[in-house]
Amino acid sequence: MGFAYLTNIPLEKAREDYIDFLEKRGFSAKTETVKTVHAAGRITAEPVYAKINAPHYAASAMDGVAIIAADSFGATETTPKVIAKENYAIVDTGDPVPNEFDAVVMVEEIINNDDGSITLHEAANPWQHIRQIGEDICAGEMILTSKTKVSPAAVGAMIAGGVTELSVIKKPVVGIIPTGDEIVPSDTVPKAGEILEFNSSIISAILSENSAEPKVYDIVKDNLEDIKNALQKACNDCDIVILNAGTSAGREDFGREAISELGECLYHGIAIKPGKPAILGAVGKVPVLGIPGYPVSAIIVIEELLNPLISHISSTAAKKKYTEAILTRQILSGLKYKEFVRVKMGYVGNILTATPLARGAGVVSSFMKADGILEIPQNTEGYKAGEKVRIRLLSDEEQLKNTLVIIGSHDPLIDELSELIHAEDSSKYLSSSHVGSMGGIMAIKRKEAHAAGCHLLDAETGKYNIPYIKKHFPQGGVRLISCVGRIQGLMTAKNNPHNIKSLSDITKDGLRYVNRQKGSGTRVLLDYLCREQNIDTENIKGYDREELTHTSVAVQIASGSADVGLGIYSAAALYNLDFIPIKTEQYSLLVLESEQSSPMVKKLIETLKSEKFRKKIEQMGGYTLDSPGEILY
Amino acid sequence: MGFAYLTNIPLEKAREDYIDFLEKRGFSAKTETVKTVHAAGRITAEPVYAKINAPHYAASAMDGVAIIAADSFGATETTPKVIAKENYAIVDTGDPVPNEFDAVVMVEEIINNDDGSITLHEAANPWQHIRQIGEDICAGEMILTSKTKVSPAAVGAMIAGGVTELSVIKKPVVGIIPTGDEIVPSDTVPKAGEILEFNSSIISAILSENSAEPKVYDIVKDNLEDIKNALQKACNDCDIVILNAGTSAGREDFGREAISELGECLYHGIAIKPGKPAILGAVGKVPVLGIPGYPVSAIIVIEELLNPLISHISSTAAKKKYTEAILTRQILSGLKYKEFVRVKMGYVGNILTATPLARGAGVVSSFMKADGILEIPQNTEGYKAGEKVRIRLLSDEEQLKNTLVIIGSHDPLIDELSELIHAEDSSKYLSSSHVGSMGGIMAIKRKEAHAAGCHLLDAETGKYNIPYIKKHFPQGGVRLISCVGRIQGLMTAKNNPHNIKSLSDITKDGLRYVNRQKGSGTRVLLDYLCREQNIDTENIKGYDREELTHTSVAVQIASGSADVGLGIYSAAALYNLDFIPIKTEQYSLLVLESEQSSPMVKKLIETLKSEKFRKKIEQMGGYTLDSPGEILY
Repeated sequence: MGFAYLTNIPLEKAREDYIDFLEKRGFSAKTETVKTVHAAGRITAEPVYAKINAPHYAASAMDGVAIIAADSFGATETTPKVIAKENYAIVDTGDPVPNEFDAVVMVEEIINNDDGSITLHEAANPWQHIRQIGEDICAGEMILTSKTKVSPAAVGAMIAGGVTELSVIKKPVVGIIPTGDEIVPSDTVPKAGEILEFNSSIISAILSENSAEPKVYDIVKDNLEDIKNALQKACNDCDIVILNAGTSAGREDFGREAISELGECLYHGIAIKPGKPAILGAVGKVPVLGIPGYPVSAIIVIEELLNPLISHISSTAAKKKYTEAILTRQILSGLKYKEFVRVKMGYVGNILTATPLARGAGVVSSFMKADGILEIPQNTEGYKAGEKVRIRLLSDEEQLKNTLVIIGSHDPLIDELSELIHAEDSSKYLSSSHVGSMGGIMAIKRKEAHAAGCHLLDAETGKYNIPYIKKHFPQGGVRLISCVGRIQGLMTAKNNPHNIKSLSDITKDGLRYVNRQKGSGTRVLLDYLCREQNIDTENIKGYDREELTHTSVAVQIASGSADVGLGIYSAAALYNLDFIPIKTEQYSLLVLESEQSSPMVKKLIETLKSEKFRKKIEQMGGYTLDSPGEILY
Repeated sequence: MGFAYLTNIPLEKAREDYIDFLEKRGFSAKTETVKTVHAAGRITAEPVYAKINAPHYAASAMDGVAIIAADSFGATETTPKVIAKENYAIVDTGDPVPNEFDAVVMVEEIINNDDGSITLHEAANPWQHIRQIGEDICAGEMILTSKTKVSPAAVGAMIAGGVTELSVIKKPVVGIIPTGDEIVPSDTVPKAGEILEFNSSIISAILSENSAEPKVYDIVKDNLEDIKNALQKACNDCDIVILNAGTSAGREDFGREAISELGECLYHGIAIKPGKPAILGAVGKVPVLGIPGYPVSAIIVIEELLNPLISHISSTAAKKKYTEAILTRQILSGLKYKEFVRVKMGYVGNILTATPLARGAGVVSSFMKADGILEIPQNTEGYKAGEKVRIRLLSDEEQLKNTLVIIGSHDPLIDELSELIHAEDSSKYLSSSHVGSMGGIMAIKRKEAHAAGCHLLDAETGKYNIPYIKKHFPQGGVRLISCVGRIQGLMTAKNNPHNIKSLSDITKDGLRYVNRQKGSGTRVLLDYLCREQNIDTENIKGYDREELTHTSVAVQIASGSADVGLGIYSAAALYNLDFIPIKTEQYSLLVLESEQSSPMVKKLIETLKSEKFRKKIEQMGGYTLDSPGEILY
């Protein structure tokens, strides 16, 4: 090995040095000739000049007759002019105007005489109603500069200008080699320890969007010789090659060794997070990039190091769009690297906010949910909550303006609301984050969300939500919208193997409980019930094991990693678990009063009141309908 | 026929009524199942739920050992804990953590003992370094709502969630039938009266951009039976059919008749310009649109009537982007229709301006050059110069900010400057409009352009440009940049068939002159020379025939529609014409002083001074280099 040492090259330097390194090895754009009819969207390799005039003949622009204008001079209502039949020609729109004529008179303005002559009551202007040769395009004129994207209209202009084919930049073929002993093809049913290979699909899709042609190779085991063989083959076939992964400095990471033995490594280790262990190298003149295995790292390395390379040789401008937003949480970052943090964004009351998502590099779903990327430069410690930050947009800004933001307690019905709203009007969206009921109340306080799902039981009054609102919003400014009653209960494996009958059973010896996070309504409920029933939470094994959603609690029980947990019926039903009902609670939506009549909140209330919502709730089971959409407070 | 009457239905009403009409006939989106690996960019037909958890097993997030956390409780530097070999398991990153364990300790924190036991000096937290089942995605969770575009990350999330295929909206197949006796395939060499068929290529490219699949049929002659046969076949094969053209009410327009006989016409005649004679109909449940033949009309009808229909069934949001700009000229519009005017746009001194382009519906090159579309609503008379208007953007706003705007006298070297600037840095653009030297001076006065090409000869002093600048900019505010000296001369057909030797020969009997437009430097030069040489312009046949560029003057002579014209050598050379030199003139660039140090003007001056420019000019011929890039005034 001997390759354990990773460099920490600043991103911009790595990018520039890599292009220099590659150009010195002879890497450059390739060109190809394509038919003009298929050229839309391609990038010209050289300027395109018209070969013929358009129109290529003097054409009549009207149905009528072609005349010599001078023959009509002096014609008026009272002194008409007669033109003999040998001195004019009948023309329809698009017909060639014979060279001897220099004007067209519309058919409506002509009187036909019996001897074949015509009478005009108005003089014609020379060249009237004639589309002159080259009026649209002149032969020899430049139609397009080089390095220019061919638009649909440019296709038409080129054909009109007699250009039937042109030289364009060839889309680079990018070979993708997935490596790893634990990786299995994406259509297999994975066993424990096996990971579905989906990075190549993500990378392919990103490359296709950037006018490159992905070519995915079979999975290669963590074995130096196999990796070298696959790499050499791909370098023979492709313009650029990606090794994914085996880029770290671990026991079974052969990426750097393989590239170095067949070619040369420029850098191993870039000052970015995620994505640090990336490798930039080449075999012959073919660029070879070692890309980390975690999907989020892979995406960042593709976007920050491969896409700029493709844009550079293809002369396509980078399509990154930026906007400014208010950061809702403090975010700290190391000084040693440039960090890319995924954020969820929302327009609430015309203010665009950005909330950092989980930073784990393995969490592909968080990339899917991200609306933008906050780039924290190297040598910057991070940003404070409330700071205005620059965000690279992943979502369309127009879409963000039409997105209802719900932050708070998790319930699968929120996803179904999202589906109902978007299916009815695909220009409207719902985005949700699950941070528990208390997190939702805080989000509403900071005006980061239009609405928050909450089901907080007040220990003193035994009432739901309203005592909390009174406490946290003493000045008012919020409304509570009724949603559903839902049954909380204990979830256990099918057939209740531990014979759990009531809450006090969760302290049974050997039983593994799985809890919800602090601040969630379900955690508040558990603590309330334990106090009420004198259950010491110290005796609950797994009381400290926290999951963020009802579904993930159910998952732990279904998979056997826990025996019991408190949650809602619909989550238990999803995994075919047994369910011991404990309490029906009010799950309501807290809404900013200032947003109550905004289009998005009106849409929410309308949907809550709809027949479709009622049906969906009944189908999911475990809920009661508390006149959803009504204002409770 | 009996179909001569055209309606004048407002666009929005036509659009809505047409969708109603089609839905009543059973027209709707089709769906198809695709492999998830190929789903990027497609639109989901139904919500997508995860089938498995991701991770689907509790996975170690580190290289180390899996233990029962409780076994380590109490361990410190001074009171280490020993764990026997049967009570832990070695795990690498990604390995499954056996169900009996609930924590992973990193390899660096372990001391291996000889008996196979390990010693820990720190207590482990339960669930530390374990990626819990479903941490990324839980089985049963909604991954995507319906009618949602699949992003690259969503492809990864679906595969991770065990979704190997999904139902998406099928891209509608749109049949395009070109019709017309005068239309010939785009790869033929057209004879007079023949028009190259390029509309189907433009339409195909627009449809592909809008996620539809174009299918182009052979050209059909203007014959009712042939059109009906082609239409019936296309309606059997396709989801939507376009007849292009034959939509007007002329003798040979069979579009409406063909659609009516096979199906039904809803409207013929929409209140838009261009595009009025569009037909909206259906055969069975297949929408059939009759689209006018002029390319600009066709594009507008596709964008305004077909694309919304495709977006409606495909649940794709319209991608139209709007901006505000200052209109540079008054524009009048009829009250009876909504008008779509192509505009050229430019950022000069941070003000975005919009200048209307030629309105002719036949001019495809003007669509290619357009940066935006000004939509003038029905019942609006138009807009005044200086008014702020809303423009639908065709060019990228970022691109407009990086575009050097040159308005003024025409010279092919401006196109070559454009090529030099863009080829060196593909993020920089040059846009030019040819309005003659005086037009250029006026554009600079109105601050619509960074620079204007001009070559105006002062009759009193015999000097170029500077007397005009003094007159039009008495307060200063402009700079004159040297460009080239160029030779103006008389262009005639090859071998000078009319034996023209000097300017006075242009009044020869039977000779057809072709002139430039008023305000152009070449027109000013002609008038100057005629006065000087006592030539009466009344005696020049064709003095009133105006062309806008040197090239188009050359075209008229090359094609035989004129015999002689004044112009520059490079235009004559392009068409292999004879050239009788008359005078060398100064072609210079007038620049706004306030823009002199803007990046775009600096780039212009740099390019004028470059070796590449010198070579290009020498290659074109007919120019002298007057230290280009130097400030003359």
